[in-house]
Amino acid sequence: MRSEWNGFVGGKWEKEINVRDFIQKNYTPYDGDDSFLAGATQNTKDLWAQVLDLQKKEREAGGVLDMDTKVISTITSHGPGYLDKSKETIVGFQTDKPFKRSMQPYGGIRMAEKACSDNGYEVDPEISEFFSTHRKTHNAGCFDAYNAEMRACRSSHVITGLPDAYGRGRIIGDYRRIALYGIDRLIEDKLEQKDSTGRVMTDDVIRLREEISEQIVALKMMKEMAASYGCDIARPATNVQEAIQATYFGYLCAVKEQNGAAMSLGRTSTFIDCFAERDLKDGKFTEEQIQEFIDHFIMKLRCVKFARTPEYNQIFAGDPVWVTESIGGVGVDGRHMVTKMSFRYLHTLNNLGAAPEPNLTVLWSTRLPENFKKFCAKTSINTSSIQYENDDLMRVTHGDDYGIACCVSSMVIGKEMQFFGARANLAKCMLYSLNGGVDEVTKKQVGPKYRPIEGDILNYDDVMAKFTDMMEWLADVYVNTLNVIHYMHDKYCYERAQMALHDRDVLRYFATGIAGLSVVTDSLSAIKYAQVKVIRDENGVITDFETTGDFPKYGNDDDRADEIAQMIVSKFMTMIRRHHTYRDGFPTMSVLTITSNVTYGKATGNTPDGRKKGQPFAPGANPMHGRDTHGAVASLSSVAKLPFNDAQDGISNTFTIIPGALGKEDQIFAGDIELDLNK
Amino acid sequence: MRSEWNGFVGGKWEKEINVRDFIQKNYTPYDGDDSFLAGATQNTKDLWAQVLDLQKKEREAGGVLDMDTKVISTITSHGPGYLDKSKETIVGFQTDKPFKRSMQPYGGIRMAEKACSDNGYEVDPEISEFFSTHRKTHNAGCFDAYNAEMRACRSSHVITGLPDAYGRGRIIGDYRRIALYGIDRLIEDKLEQKDSTGRVMTDDVIRLREEISEQIVALKMMKEMAASYGCDIARPATNVQEAIQATYFGYLCAVKEQNGAAMSLGRTSTFIDCFAERDLKDGKFTEEQIQEFIDHFIMKLRCVKFARTPEYNQIFAGDPVWVTESIGGVGVDGRHMVTKMSFRYLHTLNNLGAAPEPNLTVLWSTRLPENFKKFCAKTSINTSSIQYENDDLMRVTHGDDYGIACCVSSMVIGKEMQFFGARANLAKCMLYSLNGGVDEVTKKQVGPKYRPIEGDILNYDDVMAKFTDMMEWLADVYVNTLNVIHYMHDKYCYERAQMALHDRDVLRYFATGIAGLSVVTDSLSAIKYAQVKVIRDENGVITDFETTGDFPKYGNDDDRADEIAQMIVSKFMTMIRRHHTYRDGFPTMSVLTITSNVTYGKATGNTPDGRKKGQPFAPGANPMHGRDTHGAVASLSSVAKLPFNDAQDGISNTFTIIPGALGKEDQIFAGDIELDLNK
Repeated sequence: MRSEWNGFVGGKWEKEINVRDFIQKNYTPYDGDDSFLAGATQNTKDLWAQVLDLQKKEREAGGVLDMDTKVISTITSHGPGYLDKSKETIVGFQTDKPFKRSMQPYGGIRMAEKACSDNGYEVDPEISEFFSTHRKTHNAGCFDAYNAEMRACRSSHVITGLPDAYGRGRIIGDYRRIALYGIDRLIEDKLEQKDSTGRVMTDDVIRLREEISEQIVALKMMKEMAASYGCDIARPATNVQEAIQATYFGYLCAVKEQNGAAMSLGRTSTFIDCFAERDLKDGKFTEEQIQEFIDHFIMKLRCVKFARTPEYNQIFAGDPVWVTESIGGVGVDGRHMVTKMSFRYLHTLNNLGAAPEPNLTVLWSTRLPENFKKFCAKTSINTSSIQYENDDLMRVTHGDDYGIACCVSSMVIGKEMQFFGARANLAKCMLYSLNGGVDEVTKKQVGPKYRPIEGDILNYDDVMAKFTDMMEWLADVYVNTLNVIHYMHDKYCYERAQMALHDRDVLRYFATGIAGLSVVTDSLSAIKYAQVKVIRDENGVITDFETTGDFPKYGNDDDRADEIAQMIVSKFMTMIRRHHTYRDGFPTMSVLTITSNVTYGKATGNTPDGRKKGQPFAPGANPMHGRDTHGAVASLSSVAKLPFNDAQDGISNTFTIIPGALGKEDQIFAGDIELDLNK
Repeated sequence: MRSEWNGFVGGKWEKEINVRDFIQKNYTPYDGDDSFLAGATQNTKDLWAQVLDLQKKEREAGGVLDMDTKVISTITSHGPGYLDKSKETIVGFQTDKPFKRSMQPYGGIRMAEKACSDNGYEVDPEISEFFSTHRKTHNAGCFDAYNAEMRACRSSHVITGLPDAYGRGRIIGDYRRIALYGIDRLIEDKLEQKDSTGRVMTDDVIRLREEISEQIVALKMMKEMAASYGCDIARPATNVQEAIQATYFGYLCAVKEQNGAAMSLGRTSTFIDCFAERDLKDGKFTEEQIQEFIDHFIMKLRCVKFARTPEYNQIFAGDPVWVTESIGGVGVDGRHMVTKMSFRYLHTLNNLGAAPEPNLTVLWSTRLPENFKKFCAKTSINTSSIQYENDDLMRVTHGDDYGIACCVSSMVIGKEMQFFGARANLAKCMLYSLNGGVDEVTKKQVGPKYRPIEGDILNYDDVMAKFTDMMEWLADVYVNTLNVIHYMHDKYCYERAQMALHDRDVLRYFATGIAGLSVVTDSLSAIKYAQVKVIRDENGVITDFETTGDFPKYGNDDDRADEIAQMIVSKFMTMIRRHHTYRDGFPTMSVLTITSNVTYGKATGNTPDGRKKGQPFAPGANPMHGRDTHGAVASLSSVAKLPFNDAQDGISNTFTIIPGALGKEDQIFAGDIELDLNK
């Protein structure tokens, strides 16, 4: 056994890259309470005060404190940056100083330019020239390959939020590998992988070989970057501080090279705890020191920033990084995976105060230890900063070493990744089916020239037949648009640092999504159970509706409505599955717009359910606000009936509970939370 | 009909891009003699004197007069350049002044750097940094995907001259299209092509769509570049001068963006003649003027230069551009295609003097008009600067609108192209089969660890069995190496300007080649008909041979030897055909090393035929020098027996005839020529 591993229980993780095996052999479940936790050190307080000061200055400066306009960000493009070197136990910034946003033009030079110009900076003209003339970007590639239909669907927002002008994200590197194995061993592994591809040089094999070569370059650069901070990550970490540092460096490399829509961290706490337990046993560090390392680590994660445009921030309702860290859960052997480190991560919310990032996500199980459940509840109530997801459901598919990318997308760390696919606006698609493909807002022919609805009263069977045809069309355009996007992202903006921390053969989820489910459901219910009369404009385009009579609404545990929602989800997923997917991606779907439902609503005309043009959709799989009149349980039941098999990428339900409404304080685990009914 | 086309006979060429149809409807066969030809004008003499002076200065400067080190060459990267603007009737240089070599790093930044540094220049460090960090090159891509075996084969030279560090060339744009249709019409056509691809976005469709987009960008840049010279190529050419100018601009754009191993011109003379005949009829220009245009055109082609390294020049025995222009030939309707312009092109050899470039190639047929044959013979005798190829054979496959790329590779203009594939060294492969894959020079294991020859006397059946296995291995590595090269060339160094002047669906020849045919043949003949004893070195590696007795040698019309040659050609081609080829390339093979046979010989040990280590191979399909002892006809017969179907990319035979030996002077058509027995 390597000397760095002394004190650990051996296993097949020694012979192969297998972090899960290491964790399972070495972690110490913790059933105790939070009394062991240490508060913030003076250094932590000083550093955090500095961060708060920078945040204040950034707000005062209009949102951005400093931006790179000349140096293109790579793993090694910048020298080391510090808050206060003498006080930091975990180091590393994206650029050479905190709060300076890096320039990442691989995704699109115009986006990089606009992110600068909107904040009062200007990209060096030579860089602009170079990226327009000699170095194509992901964005340029997409638009070179799009067809007219794809561009029209993008403009009308029947497909929307496509990651063709920003990084797709949703890939989680197994950053823990660096701590456990050191870069040199990982490079060896990648060389073996490269040696193991087929000899017949098909396009797929050539692409894979080139990608592995790029991954090896990234690994070498990581080592170099770490060395610039005086850290040696060529070899395994020798203590908990080094383990946190190495893990963070891996993540840092990812965010130095990718401005992805979600740059999640993975599932690191129980892994890190193995090192902490060893060090505590050896008397190497005190609890206070270990908490300080974690506080500094989390502080760094809170400082991750990207150069983005106002339009981007509008879609995402802010400027999220989605540094999602998955905590807790239960192992497939039945032991829960809560460790002292699970407490320490959450405790940063107390030591540093509440914050949306990192997105601390508890993998909830009924079998989590009681003390941890209580601590979660207490921290949720105090900080409103914890996300919960259902581990009992996800464990069935993914086992016990998966993590959440973004808000609900689950993937096995280092073995699975996602091609993020934004979403199709089904409410708009339904309106297209009424108008024979003519957009109700722009009056342009966007969809195919199918026969529009005739007559004044909508007939359910007629509408469903036409809507089915229109969904078939939309699924086709949508999947093929995503095929272009992911081809070009791989070609011009490949995630070499993140993929260097994956196995050779990765399961790629080809994610799609739908928006407007409750609008569609209630509209169809109105057509079926009430009477909906159409109102046409001067050109004969249906632009409004008069609904007479009542109808069942989604969100009241009423199967008449709920079954429509289930049918729509299954129908569209079936249509998605019919199509060729890039790299044989495994098709999945989500019902999950937590923020962008506002944007989608803006682009969509009046709908038969009574929603007015421009009004927001309900978020994710939520019932429309105010229509779920039969109480919380009925509302949750309607959502819970949606078929998980046809929405594997997650179903989200944004749900607010007033604490007092549920009984005694210690029985409540959430104040105002997003409750993700994932799987 | 468009006004620019007034006076031409219409046809389907008006409705579709179809230059051949235009030519066939409009060309005027010329049966007369050369008495109509005009000499060089004073302007031509002045300009040519300038070129000669620049050539002298270039030689004095050590081979290069000026190089770009900061501006990366694109179609529009440079302002206009002139010799003497007031005297030039056809304008355009690769950079902003004559004899200044452009920088083209897409193929490989190290090659570009070395081409500069070897000539005393230094590439701007920012460019070097950019191309090493952010903009990958063809060369870097190849080495990322190569496996260890490919690198070993490349180092040992059992596969050699691979276009992985230089442009593959061998693609001929249909430059005439610009003159006939104008850029705007060609852009329309490309937009229609883009609109015509399948809706299912497979990788192939996405690649094609992106390529067409790049082609459209190139067409727009061509228009812009021409405008900088004051020329409008958006519309069709209105006279012969504009037609020549537009055709030349198309070619110029190709050499501004591609430093290919062979950048050939196509088949332009009879096309241009249609414009000349119309202008002569209209009294628009005199013969003297038209000859001046052609002289200036050819002068420009002689000034095409690339930045290359001494190593490159060594492989190619100089610094060839292979501006091959195919002249004459016979149409499929039986009319010969010789026009006055065919005479004018050849006449530049008189007006400007002999020169290797452009590579004026007569498509020879017994049915060419007698006067033209005589003129060819006379010009050949005077200038030794004409290449002849067999049109009667090639017409069967390619019809009457093909051209020659490089020296013998035939392709239909605008409809076919070639993936150039350099060649495999079969002589070395034979030695590998004796030594179980161990290289006879480096003593390294390069090929598979098959059983080596045992005993001291070589047995023909044993050697053939082992050689067959080794050829199977070599064909596999070779084709797969080429798969990598062409994938990466398309990815990082795509020929957008040339491909913009092709149809959407192009037949891609996947060219391979063999070197050392006569060495292999004579060696096997020696093993079969004489006694060959092996001599092993201290490590047991066979490094020399003692041959006792005589044996039949290739080049004497002796079937005992010739059949071995035929068998080897067919065998290897059959093996090539077994493999997957990039983009379903149509596999072909050539026996064609005109110059690099020297280099291949250098890297190859002693062979059983008596050839000593390091001695050159015979060029192409030639018998080994001095072994063809039965006269010219017997020598030619041996070569002619090689199976064309298995060497479709051409068989070359370098053949020297003393003029007096063949009879009266006017019966000889060549002085000291390369006689290419193509097809």
